[in-house]
Amino acid sequence: AGPGRAMRAAGAALAAAAVSAVLLAVAAWRRARPVREVLFFPSRPCCIEALLAEAAEPGAPVRPCPCPLPSGDTALSRLVRRLLSARRSLDLCVFAFSCPQLARTVQLLHHRGVRVRLVTDAQYMGMHGSQIGRLRHAGIQVRHDQHSGYMHHKFAIVDRRMLITGSLNWTAQAIQSNRENVLVVEDAEYVKAFQDEFERIWEEYNPANYKFFP
Amino acid sequence: AGPGRAMRAAGAALAAAAVSAVLLAVAAWRRARPVREVLFFPSRPCCIEALLAEAAEPGAPVRPCPCPLPSGDTALSRLVRRLLSARRSLDLCVFAFSCPQLARTVQLLHHRGVRVRLVTDAQYMGMHGSQIGRLRHAGIQVRHDQHSGYMHHKFAIVDRRMLITGSLNWTAQAIQSNRENVLVVEDAEYVKAFQDEFERIWEEYNPANYKFFP
Repeated sequence: AGPGRAMRAAGAALAAAAVSAVLLAVAAWRRARPVREVLFFPSRPCCIEALLAEAAEPGAPVRPCPCPLPSGDTALSRLVRRLLSARRSLDLCVFAFSCPQLARTVQLLHHRGVRVRLVTDAQYMGMHGSQIGRLRHAGIQVRHDQHSGYMHHKFAIVDRRMLITGSLNWTAQAIQSNRENVLVVEDAEYVKAFQDEFERIWEEYNPANYKFFP
Repeated sequence: AGPGRAMRAAGAALAAAAVSAVLLAVAAWRRARPVREVLFFPSRPCCIEALLAEAAEPGAPVRPCPCPLPSGDTALSRLVRRLLSARRSLDLCVFAFSCPQLARTVQLLHHRGVRVRLVTDAQYMGMHGSQIGRLRHAGIQVRHDQHSGYMHHKFAIVDRRMLITGSLNWTAQAIQSNRENVLVVEDAEYVKAFQDEFERIWEEYNPANYKFFP
């Protein structure tokens, strides 16, 4: 039985090694695979406090939130997770921005040292509930149009690598009540097109270029 | 000089064959390559009469349009071309639809036998300039929401194969004055997600399901 047992042990070790190799390969493939995601709204209501707390202090013990909302996997929590993955830059181009949860997400990134640039629409930035003042107050650079047409884009670029774009304005109404879509695309060609558009708008809306009419 | 000339001729024939092979390969690759396009608005003003005339009567001599607009390559003409490529179906989910040129495009597809289904927003479909009445009058099936949130999508699916989606409402103001984006994506994964969303909405907005409150 001695040699038989040794062979069975060797076989088991070999099988375990093979399984580990396959698991490692799958994990590597998952890491390497570009993100492709579609989010549809309205999102189920959810609490994103745990997400924000973990992003603010990674590894710190999370205090349970006293609010009654579940903290499950929803379109909103997925959007927040994608934004929180930013390490270097976040370029935002959003027509209407009044959702406090998304404003806190952006503010948190800014505090973490991520370079945030925000473009928005002049007519909508002054509306009730707009988060633009709060974000400017926090030190985030904001630029806006100066013409009659709307700056109607709703996209974000994370680390010049991931494009988040769709029909969704960053408002509580849109998130909770509207039928909306958001595409998450990690694709160099699409990202470049939107990054170029962002840089064009960022320069065009530079306050140094403002025209004042008497 | 006889054998030399023959060899030069053979060499030239060989080079021509090689060039043809490369050109054919490039053409095949182009045909097989899925469409990936990003359109940014505002679009330069353009006349799409020639495009519509060619789609209505392929091969017929095109009468020049008397309007002063150029008929060049613009974001609008590209969008119209993509829509006109429909052969079997066009599934439309558009919040605001008041652009007469896009309404004519959709109507033309309907007359050509393409199965058009249109979902829109109840609050916006009755607004000034809305094309929904005209499209219904032409015999196109239209469904709309019956709740307080907006049906805020702006996407089209051509032949269950090509997704056209972005921030752009189908209004003249959006096309001519706003900063907007439209992605054109021929990708089975993204198309399926949006096709499923369309079918969900189409069923949910079935008039048989309307609720009438006293």
